[in-house]
Amino acid sequence: MTKRKIALISTGGTIEKTYDELSGVLANQVSVLDVMLASLELRGVEVQRVALMNKDSLDMSSEDHTLIAQTAAEMAKKHAGVVIVHGTDRLAVSGDRICELGKPASPIVLTGAMRPYELRSTDALQNLTEALLAVQILPAGVYVAMHNQVLQFPGVTKDRSAGTFVKGGA
Amino acid sequence: MTKRKIALISTGGTIEKTYDELSGVLANQVSVLDVMLASLELRGVEVQRVALMNKDSLDMSSEDHTLIAQTAAEMAKKHAGVVIVHGTDRLAVSGDRICELGKPASPIVLTGAMRPYELRSTDALQNLTEALLAVQILPAGVYVAMHNQVLQFPGVTKDRSAGTFVKGGA
Amino acid sequence: MTKRKIALISTGGTIEKTYDELSGVLANQVSVLDVMLASLELRGVEVQRVALMNKDSLDMSSEDHTLIAQTAAEMAKKHAGVVIVHGTDRLAVSGDRICELGKPASPIVLTGAMRPYELRSTDALQNLTEALLAVQILPAGVYVAMHNQVLQFPGVTKDRSAGTFVKGGA
Amino acid sequence: MTKRKIALISTGGTIEKTYDELSGVLANQVSVLDVMLASLELRGVEVQRVALMNKDSLDMSSEDHTLIAQTAAEMAKKHAGVVIVHGTDRLAVSGDRICELGKPASPIVLTGAMRPYELRSTDALQNLTEALLAVQILPAGVYVAMHNQVLQFPGVTKDRSAGTFVKGGA
Repeated sequence: MTKRKIALISTGGTIEKTYDELSGVLANQVSVLDVMLASLELRGVEVQRVALMNKDSLDMSSEDHTLIAQTAAEMAKKHAGVVIVHGTDRLAVSGDRICELGKPASPIVLTGAMRPYELRSTDALQNLTEALLAVQILPAGVYVAMHNQVLQFPGVTKDRSAGTFVKGGA
Repeated sequence: MTKRKIALISTGGTIEKTYDELSGVLANQVSVLDVMLASLELRGVEVQRVALMNKDSLDMSSEDHTLIAQTAAEMAKKHAGVVIVHGTDRLAVSGDRICELGKPASPIVLTGAMRPYELRSTDALQNLTEALLAVQILPAGVYVAMHNQVLQFPGVTKDRSAGTFVKGGA
Repeated sequence: MTKRKIALISTGGTIEKTYDELSGVLANQVSVLDVMLASLELRGVEVQRVALMNKDSLDMSSEDHTLIAQTAAEMAKKHAGVVIVHGTDRLAVSGDRICELGKPASPIVLTGAMRPYELRSTDALQNLTEALLAVQILPAGVYVAMHNQVLQFPGVTKDRSAGTFVKGGA
Repeated sequence: MTKRKIALISTGGTIEKTYDELSGVLANQVSVLDVMLASLELRGVEVQRVALMNKDSLDMSSEDHTLIAQTAAEMAKKHAGVVIVHGTDRLAVSGDRICELGKPASPIVLTGAMRPYELRSTDALQNLTEALLAVQILPAGVYVAMHNQVLQFPGVTKDRSAGTFVKGGA
């Protein structure tokens, strides 16, 4: 059984935030993705890590979204799939931007988290697990996989009060 | 967004084993599935729990496998999908038994674990997460979802030395 | 074996901070002390909870410190010991304030944490465990128990660069 | 603040049991004490590890108990204290054996666990934390520190139904 080669593009966001003892805040300083990946049994995919940026998505510029979209589209040509770890606040902006570039060569799955991996109670591992499975099963296209749900772009928005993504909505 | 109604059939196995302080062994006594489900964000599925049996699969009789297969096939008619939590040693026997009943009405996804949920380091949550996502995406059929991989029955076997499932094999 | 009756005064601080998904920050909103206590085997003490305040200690006024000191001294008369959960930044101020009230009737042990209990990697449980043991063994006096160390007031200060308490020092 | 130099003698027992995926049982094969120690903030003690044996205490011979007692008594002369990690079933036998050698030169604190560290819910870290604190505070003597309690030998027995140690008892 050969593993599918996928690209895992990290851009920052809540999922990767770590705690700074001195300041007492959670910030995007060190990627914890490698720790998460090491805690999973990965028999289906071989992951190529692409550490593109490490930003709270609220701090992303339009150029950042374009860079993410272009990188993902490019990676989709050379891999069996692409997973993007992204802050949830602007995840849908990047998702739409990828769609504007046309249908990707392989599935591109965005994911993120409402609660950092560093927390005892977190959705980070669940969401990463789902993205890494979904990217193997879905046809080429742009998706978000999170909270036990796969939604296809375009037309995905974050429902801020529910703390998750929905299809349609405002 | 309406949730898909799926059936979650529990049969026991390593994934559900709990620790008995007095005897110092891990055994199938109490289902920890509800604890696992409560720790996940489930936006895609609405789960109907079916506690069919609670056995180490090495202790399953031929009648047990048939009962599991018939229950799953029946549930598949009334639900958008079925997830079966099963001991890994005989998981493939139940998977093949379901196939013998013909193509199911909706996807049936088996899963299990090599290390009980009760352990600090476990694959139980990863595998349950994967099964609960895969059952929403896959077409009708019989599968195992585990360790970042989906394999379709028939023809799936447990690779005991690797501690996972493979397609083909002996 | 009768358990020692002790008072556990909570005042807030990092140890009790919880994560707010919507704002993405850690704050003192809900006491997680009960969760911590439930996770420990407590055969030596019977705990009476006194939820005095729930503040980051950087926000404590002089009146707050006096209230904490007077409450602790009063509780020490009626109990076999007192444990105070406190933010570390101003923990030493409360410790000194208690000393100014004279030798307490039973041991008073302050503790806190550099990393909230909500974090996967935290010193909160270690420190609470230590305080709940030290309060049974130590003679009457005022102490901080944290990071595998017991120090007696007065003369204790927080070493901010090391993130712990020291005797003497500035 | 100089750290107290203590010896940490490991002998096995439930606290150190690890899970073997292939056989599905918990056994004493690898010491997890180093992992536990690394997860604690140790400002009070400097630990010298003495890996004496790695046995379920039900398998200990009379010679094993004597070896443990003699090693502990010897180590107590050269260190500020000794902590012994021990299976709980025969922990009291080793404790009594140490007492028979006369009053030790420094405090000797035995500890163990009812639930292995490998379990998600375990008393191992609590008990190790308590032993590593108690050994700094107690006068020379032989003790068990576990479950928020310190009891002095001789006269300590395991209460099997309660799953803990008591003074007196049968």
